[in-house]
Amino acid sequence: MSEVSNHARKTLDILRLRADTPGVKNRNHLNNAGASLMPNPVIDAVIGYLRREGEIGGYEAAAEANSSLEGTYDSLATLLGCSRDEVAIAENATIAWQRAFYSLSFAPGDRILTASAEFAANYVAFLQVAKRTGVSIEIIPNDASGVLDPGALAKMIDARVRLIAVTWLPTNGGLINPAAAVGQIARENGILYLLDACQAAGQIPIDVNSLGCDILTATGRKFLRAPRGTGFMYMRKSVLETIEPAMIDLYGAPCAGVDRYELRPDARRFETWEKNYSVRLGLRAAVDYALQIGLENIEERCNYLSSKLREGLREMPAVTVYDIGAPLASIISFTVEGWDASAVMVYLTSKGINVSVSPPSSTPVDACARHLPPVVRASPHYYNTEEEIDGILEAIAGLRAKDKRKL
Amino acid sequence: MSEVSNHARKTLDILRLRADTPGVKNRNHLNNAGASLMPNPVIDAVIGYLRREGEIGGYEAAAEANSSLEGTYDSLATLLGCSRDEVAIAENATIAWQRAFYSLSFAPGDRILTASAEFAANYVAFLQVAKRTGVSIEIIPNDASGVLDPGALAKMIDARVRLIAVTWLPTNGGLINPAAAVGQIARENGILYLLDACQAAGQIPIDVNSLGCDILTATGRKFLRAPRGTGFMYMRKSVLETIEPAMIDLYGAPCAGVDRYELRPDARRFETWEKNYSVRLGLRAAVDYALQIGLENIEERCNYLSSKLREGLREMPAVTVYDIGAPLASIISFTVEGWDASAVMVYLTSKGINVSVSPPSSTPVDACARHLPPVVRASPHYYNTEEEIDGILEAIAGLRAKDKRKL
Repeated sequence: MSEVSNHARKTLDILRLRADTPGVKNRNHLNNAGASLMPNPVIDAVIGYLRREGEIGGYEAAAEANSSLEGTYDSLATLLGCSRDEVAIAENATIAWQRAFYSLSFAPGDRILTASAEFAANYVAFLQVAKRTGVSIEIIPNDASGVLDPGALAKMIDARVRLIAVTWLPTNGGLINPAAAVGQIARENGILYLLDACQAAGQIPIDVNSLGCDILTATGRKFLRAPRGTGFMYMRKSVLETIEPAMIDLYGAPCAGVDRYELRPDARRFETWEKNYSVRLGLRAAVDYALQIGLENIEERCNYLSSKLREGLREMPAVTVYDIGAPLASIISFTVEGWDASAVMVYLTSKGINVSVSPPSSTPVDACARHLPPVVRASPHYYNTEEEIDGILEAIAGLRAKDKRKL
Repeated sequence: MSEVSNHARKTLDILRLRADTPGVKNRNHLNNAGASLMPNPVIDAVIGYLRREGEIGGYEAAAEANSSLEGTYDSLATLLGCSRDEVAIAENATIAWQRAFYSLSFAPGDRILTASAEFAANYVAFLQVAKRTGVSIEIIPNDASGVLDPGALAKMIDARVRLIAVTWLPTNGGLINPAAAVGQIARENGILYLLDACQAAGQIPIDVNSLGCDILTATGRKFLRAPRGTGFMYMRKSVLETIEPAMIDLYGAPCAGVDRYELRPDARRFETWEKNYSVRLGLRAAVDYALQIGLENIEERCNYLSSKLREGLREMPAVTVYDIGAPLASIISFTVEGWDASAVMVYLTSKGINVSVSPPSSTPVDACARHLPPVVRASPHYYNTEEEIDGILEAIAGLRAKDKRKL
């Protein structure tokens, strides 16, 4: 651990990165799994473009910035390890995921295999499509440590499995599902594989080919530090050519005469003509910023800080940490004896510490299986400091002291 | 005409409104049917909120601004004459329209009736759903002047008509379809009525009850002067209760246990949990700004300026204006003999005049029926001046002179 941390500390110039981040002056921001603090290059890209729209007009600013805007696809392709034609930009991750998932066709008896800690947004969509088409939704068993078990998945495979759809890093804790092992099984059996990478993007390296996924979706606002209102989708070229989007407009499917349309040949068939260009430039700036720092460096530093926080929390007898598996991501969910998660969050907020609460409804199957209460979620990023980790640990210790006084 | 114009000139303090609009210093902006120049209150709302996100975090800024953000629904309800529960906010008008349209179910033999100048984004969706379900798409005939003919519509009605879906103010010219007369027929026959009001919102008063529509969708970026990345939907309460969105997530349809979800009772069942809050505050500022000026005043001033531009263009023998019907909206499409529309646009841009080009593919049925070439589209708004109208007229006259020198 100490060797890793020394390396991460040496590699990244944390002071410089913090100087780029206006929010660190005001908050101990440990809510990067919710929405990260945007760095100045991202804020400046969005605001600069909005001002330009105000100065010369929306269409006119878009024409002027066309090559920068197109560059967003190149940056995302570099982040994901794919071709720019395989990238669609969306208004958020849910819209990206919906545009992919709802474009697939299912028949009664088909099977969708998913993980126990699947995000509720995806899960309710499964329930809806099950009701609509008769497809069955089945949970891939976990191993003894609570991680999705690729061996169990392999045993579930048959000709009726139409889709494997998994959340890589679930929203409610540090679990990292074995996305590449799932991908290998999907590839070997020629089964479509949709990977939700919302908490992975900007936190760990992503390479769609080594993951073996056909479709990957993610958001900009979390560890990627992009503005809200951004999401994106990777879809493998050979797959996207076979999928007609569930919904089309004149951008994804231009009219070719009065009685027919022609789908775009690239992943942008899943986009609409209307776009918010300002946040696309912010997304590009965020991706470039992450690439410049290096995703390996980011992962290492996140691992260092989140391990420090985990260890500190585990030493507190009144704190329960809800970790599953190893290695763990930079999302630590916990409860404090005698305190509701929301009360812990309110208390931490009063100390200038940002966290969030993950309710059971955000991961219904896992929360039900593990009888999870609402949990506090702390999620450090590379720009956080050791002092900030100490700060939240002290605050929680203080909360317990306060509690004792109350009794 | 002159009485109207005097009134509009007296009512609105154009100088003050222009002082609010940074873009008027740089451009003669006659591209309000594309994207209007945002006024300072809108720009400030978006940028102020983005900076706040940078200062304290995205979730934290949203919590702080919660009541302002909720106010966006109230402002839109006032704009539309409906209840706030009947309003959903979307990432753009196409997404709003798609979420409504694709949630309807059709059977073979069902009929969708639409207008000849329907926007291509909607039209390709009709073609897709026709292919998918066997519904037939039928064009409501126009009267002799080219306007949708309510009498002809009434004759088309039978038990198989499942939907009337019409664009109120088409994108490619000044046509105003008789939306309320269509609504009366829809109401009398109990037929669902979906109205695309993209070019109407912010240009003319909207009252969903007098229009008689069940669903209305619009964008923020056009005459409403809101930021890009904003759209909205009105859906009548009695209708939305019967419609399950085509796509759901945990916001519109929260999990109610591990095997079922419950749709929200309000129009937000068509929204996703992830939102771009900054532009929602910009949308609210834009709606409030328009309401403060008064939609009647805006309509009158638009009418005054667009009439002045139309009259000027009609006096030029080398110019063809593609107007249909009366009264006309503030969208004037035209061509100049010997010049491609795109060349006219490039030339006007070089003179600091913003217009756009409407290609035949944006309104395929109408463009085909009228053999329309790509047309230049000029669209004044209330903040434009008489001098700016004279400016574009002089520029076009200059273009002709240039043309003659070339010959």
